[in-house]
Amino acid sequence: MTYSVAVAGASGYAGGELLRLLADHPEFDIRTVTGHSNAGKPLIASQPHLRSLAHLTLQETTPEVLDGHDVVFFALPHGASGALTAQLKNVRLAIDCGADHRLTSEADWTAFYGGEFNEPWTYGVPELIVAGGEASALPARQREQLIGATRIAAPGCNASTVALSLAPGIAAGVIEATDIVTVLAVGPSGAGKAAHTHLLGAELMGTANPYAVGGTHRHIPEIQQALRGAGATEEPTLSFTPVLVPMSRGILATTTARIVPGTSAADVRAAWERAYADETFVHVLPEGFYPRTADTVGANTCLMGVAIDEAAGRVVIVAAVDNLAKGTAGAAIQSANIALGIPEATGLSVNGVAP
Amino acid sequence: MTYSVAVAGASGYAGGELLRLLADHPEFDIRTVTGHSNAGKPLIASQPHLRSLAHLTLQETTPEVLDGHDVVFFALPHGASGALTAQLKNVRLAIDCGADHRLTSEADWTAFYGGEFNEPWTYGVPELIVAGGEASALPARQREQLIGATRIAAPGCNASTVALSLAPGIAAGVIEATDIVTVLAVGPSGAGKAAHTHLLGAELMGTANPYAVGGTHRHIPEIQQALRGAGATEEPTLSFTPVLVPMSRGILATTTARIVPGTSAADVRAAWERAYADETFVHVLPEGFYPRTADTVGANTCLMGVAIDEAAGRVVIVAAVDNLAKGTAGAAIQSANIALGIPEATGLSVNGVAP
Amino acid sequence: MTYSVAVAGASGYAGGELLRLLADHPEFDIRTVTGHSNAGKPLIASQPHLRSLAHLTLQETTPEVLDGHDVVFFALPHGASGALTAQLKNVRLAIDCGADHRLTSEADWTAFYGGEFNEPWTYGVPELIVAGGEASALPARQREQLIGATRIAAPGCNASTVALSLAPGIAAGVIEATDIVTVLAVGPSGAGKAAHTHLLGAELMGTANPYAVGGTHRHIPEIQQALRGAGATEEPTLSFTPVLVPMSRGILATTTARIVPGTSAADVRAAWERAYADETFVHVLPEGFYPRTADTVGANTCLMGVAIDEAAGRVVIVAAVDNLAKGTAGAAIQSANIALGIPEATGLSVNGVAP
Amino acid sequence: MTYSVAVAGASGYAGGELLRLLADHPEFDIRTVTGHSNAGKPLIASQPHLRSLAHLTLQETTPEVLDGHDVVFFALPHGASGALTAQLKNVRLAIDCGADHRLTSEADWTAFYGGEFNEPWTYGVPELIVAGGEASALPARQREQLIGATRIAAPGCNASTVALSLAPGIAAGVIEATDIVTVLAVGPSGAGKAAHTHLLGAELMGTANPYAVGGTHRHIPEIQQALRGAGATEEPTLSFTPVLVPMSRGILATTTARIVPGTSAADVRAAWERAYADETFVHVLPEGFYPRTADTVGANTCLMGVAIDEAAGRVVIVAAVDNLAKGTAGAAIQSANIALGIPEATGLSVNGVAP
Repeated sequence: MTYSVAVAGASGYAGGELLRLLADHPEFDIRTVTGHSNAGKPLIASQPHLRSLAHLTLQETTPEVLDGHDVVFFALPHGASGALTAQLKNVRLAIDCGADHRLTSEADWTAFYGGEFNEPWTYGVPELIVAGGEASALPARQREQLIGATRIAAPGCNASTVALSLAPGIAAGVIEATDIVTVLAVGPSGAGKAAHTHLLGAELMGTANPYAVGGTHRHIPEIQQALRGAGATEEPTLSFTPVLVPMSRGILATTTARIVPGTSAADVRAAWERAYADETFVHVLPEGFYPRTADTVGANTCLMGVAIDEAAGRVVIVAAVDNLAKGTAGAAIQSANIALGIPEATGLSVNGVAP
Repeated sequence: MTYSVAVAGASGYAGGELLRLLADHPEFDIRTVTGHSNAGKPLIASQPHLRSLAHLTLQETTPEVLDGHDVVFFALPHGASGALTAQLKNVRLAIDCGADHRLTSEADWTAFYGGEFNEPWTYGVPELIVAGGEASALPARQREQLIGATRIAAPGCNASTVALSLAPGIAAGVIEATDIVTVLAVGPSGAGKAAHTHLLGAELMGTANPYAVGGTHRHIPEIQQALRGAGATEEPTLSFTPVLVPMSRGILATTTARIVPGTSAADVRAAWERAYADETFVHVLPEGFYPRTADTVGANTCLMGVAIDEAAGRVVIVAAVDNLAKGTAGAAIQSANIALGIPEATGLSVNGVAP
Repeated sequence: MTYSVAVAGASGYAGGELLRLLADHPEFDIRTVTGHSNAGKPLIASQPHLRSLAHLTLQETTPEVLDGHDVVFFALPHGASGALTAQLKNVRLAIDCGADHRLTSEADWTAFYGGEFNEPWTYGVPELIVAGGEASALPARQREQLIGATRIAAPGCNASTVALSLAPGIAAGVIEATDIVTVLAVGPSGAGKAAHTHLLGAELMGTANPYAVGGTHRHIPEIQQALRGAGATEEPTLSFTPVLVPMSRGILATTTARIVPGTSAADVRAAWERAYADETFVHVLPEGFYPRTADTVGANTCLMGVAIDEAAGRVVIVAAVDNLAKGTAGAAIQSANIALGIPEATGLSVNGVAP
Repeated sequence: MTYSVAVAGASGYAGGELLRLLADHPEFDIRTVTGHSNAGKPLIASQPHLRSLAHLTLQETTPEVLDGHDVVFFALPHGASGALTAQLKNVRLAIDCGADHRLTSEADWTAFYGGEFNEPWTYGVPELIVAGGEASALPARQREQLIGATRIAAPGCNASTVALSLAPGIAAGVIEATDIVTVLAVGPSGAGKAAHTHLLGAELMGTANPYAVGGTHRHIPEIQQALRGAGATEEPTLSFTPVLVPMSRGILATTTARIVPGTSAADVRAAWERAYADETFVHVLPEGFYPRTADTVGANTCLMGVAIDEAAGRVVIVAAVDNLAKGTAGAAIQSANIALGIPEATGLSVNGVAP
């Protein structure tokens, strides 16, 4: 069947990527797009690359406009969707690409975001390992929670990249959950389309600019929550530093964790290879290979290289994703596919646009 | 007085930056430039930005051509300068921007470079703290070793950036020397001018590309050596991951180390502020500020931001340098100034070319 | 039905883009990929973004390997395909992305390329206007020549962009074919994947580099040929200057031509709007709007803005394409679709990957 | 002697570059810097690369604050300096980097800028040829007008680049002044530091974006004025198209003009070579060489390549400058040097920062 779809926040970067993917998805019919300052204008004035959607006009982002669609995607600034989603009466599936419904801990929400706490929705990272009740050959996945879900929280792009990087080692008990360090090279599309001086092209070209240094980034509690879910036996701690680099899209997350003493290099590596061996969209590269963000542009793919640094006693996971695709819109659509019983890979590409 | 100068390897990136700085240096007179495949051609064909040096022609890189200058700078591939420098008879000061004379441990040389081991020269990072024999109010500096030196090893660009980032904490005893993690966003000029497919513009634009992952980068033993020199009481261990990002120049090194338990945040921060308070070219930014590589382009400046992440138990030092300037050619000229008794900052700028 | 496909030159940029598009094309089955220095290695070592083709191994580029496929795409350096294609006995459709079969004039070939002249194949720019025998409401298109074609020459990326920019005005008689000026901002993927110093990332980031200045670029005769075909009544002359800019993909061609005196601005504009009103992949933007290359990345779309500068007496056409997609591989596949009777837009996207 | 200096608009890009150059200028003493929204804050918060000026605080931009300095540089938005400069009573030399005092024609001002017309000041492009009263071996230069000037209008960066590109041919009578075409690849720092969505990094990276297409750019009348001054015998007409490309700084202007029929290629080329043979900062490259913007970064240099395209009947001049340096701040300081009798090249570098 075909599902009627609305996208709220269609004039921004996440909204644009949702629409780019939805436009080629055979089961979704984009009926409604909404914006804020651009309401009343053609979508294509904000999204000139979406040539096949030139017929759409941005409407106001109100519950009335959004209600009644089979599926509604929210791509609004953090804090904006909570009140709105509460008013939807007749929406089979709502997916929030903002942070409002990601955290299960009100204390974390208050510490890192502030404002009213919203109920957590099902977390939209299908491949994420979640600790099962009993030992089994195959670990449980977040995918199983998504089947039939009606409210889904798409992940933070940095958070899901780091969580996917670490969960195999945590679940297999080969790395420690404390004293993790991650540094991310990220493109500025993750910061959104609002005009700020520090995000100007002249400020970002030819330079690497760190931000949110020292433990203040909002994706930290989201990662910790995922690692707890993956079976961390200690409270996870991590040093997290994002660095803006001159590429419009992409996250390259370099994450290191201490190897549990006595674990062999082969066992460490096997944890990652086994974890994602059957996954369509998360690939562990052969030993000695590491991914580039270019290879994931526009794709729903997370590429991962794993190194064991015996001298340092750490495993190094380098993971590449497209922050707008696998990091946000791709994860949302993949999760929607699962929730609705559509084959999981429908409308999503595994191949990046490179060079 | 004016010193006659030769630059060997003048057609490459490090050679070009040496010449750019030397061209405006009042005490140095560039007499000779040498190349390899470009010998016999005008310098400006290789270095079209060096308009004031249009009169120079590249000569062959031989001991005969180089001998007899007051000062000779070597900007040759690693392994190429060792045999050459051994044949110089009449050169007051030789400075090697390659790795051949940096390491004091033959075992490290063999493990990370291979080939014949060369005697170590005086290390050219003037601001680097070196542990003195007895406690003193002011730490000793590598600068003191450089006074009157006749053979100097300019540092590896990544190595000196990370060493400067950590030495204050090591020397002050506020951080642990083990389990350090550093991830560097670096521009491709650091990889040199030889034509390799993986360094093509189309391969590097719009993407972040990791390399030398997992403990294989050659600057690791150089950093460990510097940290030992700074007074590390344990054998330093570090996870080191460089990531190529789309900027022609620049290093942004994000380095974290565990804070010694019981140390106050104020004491940690004070270690860095005190260490560089009197330095011309290494600046610790005010609390909450972090540097961008753009702010150091063309300058001999290392900018540093320091964060204490109490939840993670780590200090995070973000340091920005221009890999060709402060990272290589600037360090070489600053060291030459000291060696020859020229005021240390002569011919070097503290201001970057931004945006 | 499904056509068996081989791609020769599969390790390069054009080959990679062909494969990216073919991988999602429902009527083509990629059976064989060939390379030169990479023969024997997995395709994915050269094309790490083509995750769905990880099972393919590069074979030698020989007639024996290529013959017998329904369709063979050639993505070889100029001059390499001519001899090879002559030996194919059992290939229903051969498409050459190189220049060997583009030019109809041996004199042009000799002047701009040199070496043996090969017979011209059907030119693969479906939307290009070709002058019909008699006046008709709708102009004839190159598309009509492609129906049932068995040998197709995919266009030069710059050439087709400029030809599409000018043909409407030439065909409508509203612009002069002489004294055309075009300047193109181009990404380095158009220069191929061979390692050359002047194409290194450090040479191309943060700078604009012109090349082939003053009438030497090989796409000039190809454009002239297309303009003659579009009905130019005078021998076309054009000044053509490409400028490498720091984007991996894309062509932004700014082309100006003198308006035929006495022509109204409305008539000029109407020539372009009418020419492409019914085209799926060539869009003329509304008055006052101009395209960005980002909006065409990965898409088979050519976006065009048209300005009438009455003070200068010239029309200015700004056209954006992805050099690898619409400029090369997309044009090849679109042409193959037409030749084989597959719906023209199959496997091709009209939406770009932006930002 | 040392001149006291104030810079108005010190928090923007042009202001920052003025200060970077002034900081190393031996005859100027930066006393005062002013801003608008940043008044009261340290300069270094806006200009973190200007480490040597960390002691300065931004003041309000008022006549009272600025008056009394020997030299005042204005780097304000267009239209902002006119009223302000009128109130200065005791300033020996005022230099406006904005457009307010550039145009001599009120009609041009009204057509392209609007608002109150201000009296024209001496135009600050020293090397620009100005037609002399009588034939002479050496052409007159704008330099001569600048000696002793007290009010100087620094040029538009695009305008001076194109004017310098064309003036030699116009003055020598070897090119026509009508039907000129120029297309410029420009970096976004020329658009200033105000936050606009279309100037965000994510909008500008990896893409080429045209603007002001079709004869609307404000630098057109400024170029026409310069060409009239260089001796154009017909009213100059030009098609002018700027294209934003992903480099923070730089202009690469590709300008073509029709060669006067019957003129030999040697005579055309000689016009440019002779015109700039004795200039320190404008260099005509040898035949067959063309400049890159990287080679001019931070320098006061304009590099020019000249090609004669006989088939097209046009000369092609490719000129590279740093829009902030030679294009704006360098021109201002060079002009100030001349006006005050300081050696013209003082404080300005001829060598660019590349790669």
